[in-house]
Amino acid sequence: MAELHPQLMKDCLLIGRFPLCRLLLMQDANYPWFILVPDREAVTEIHQLGADDRRQLLSESCALATVLAEHFHADKLNIAALGNVVPQLHVHHVVRYHDDPAWPAPVWGHTPAKPYTAKALDEVIDKLRAGAPDGLELLV
Amino acid sequence: MAELHPQLMKDCLLIGRFPLCRLLLMQDANYPWFILVPDREAVTEIHQLGADDRRQLLSESCALATVLAEHFHADKLNIAALGNVVPQLHVHHVVRYHDDPAWPAPVWGHTPAKPYTAKALDEVIDKLRAGAPDGLELLV
Repeated sequence: MAELHPQLMKDCLLIGRFPLCRLLLMQDANYPWFILVPDREAVTEIHQLGADDRRQLLSESCALATVLAEHFHADKLNIAALGNVVPQLHVHHVVRYHDDPAWPAPVWGHTPAKPYTAKALDEVIDKLRAGAPDGLELLV
Repeated sequence: MAELHPQLMKDCLLIGRFPLCRLLLMQDANYPWFILVPDREAVTEIHQLGADDRRQLLSESCALATVLAEHFHADKLNIAALGNVVPQLHVHHVVRYHDDPAWPAPVWGHTPAKPYTAKALDEVIDKLRAGAPDGLELLV
């Protein structure tokens, strides 16, 4: 299994696994903010993945996004592979609301991270569990 | 053909067509900044596309990204479907350099757009033409 970049380990909780990707939750209660990390070594861009891995990433991303849209009642999803700071390929899936702290700006660098309370964290996990994204094994 | 959102028409040049997407160039010479717009009505999220369209979008995105990485000598690509301001589904493909005005921050909202000179615009189009992304018909 590819090691997670130390910055991702510091900023996120590992909450689940799809066949290709680990699913992380950003420790920032301002937004339900998930990250998919394909379990491949030394890949920094989506197009560097092989054809099967690309399709699997798309499938896992869409399975997650469908649940985020429906069970989190997202006003919008922000899906992005940036990686300017953390080179390991990772794809942000951020649930956006018209009344969130950064709306309509992107979330990166906008507002200091807000720690989760235990209750708020449980609520996020419960919504994800209720949505049951196709292929996801929850680890929490 | 789906109409382009007026804000995209205002901010971008239409420079090409893939089988599914129109290819736009953001009129901001700070970064080589391309946008793919799937030619589908009333779609705001990637997961709302049908299975064939999803795969085609992935294929066109990777064809473009491969050329941006190689022919534009990108230090990093930023690929993102945000859509907080313009709801029509569109996927940003931004070539990032370690010495660009926003590095390592995301580009959105960072630096006022810088108009292209005719020469700089020609150079961008020439690089794209040299790379010849699979499936792209250039319109310029």
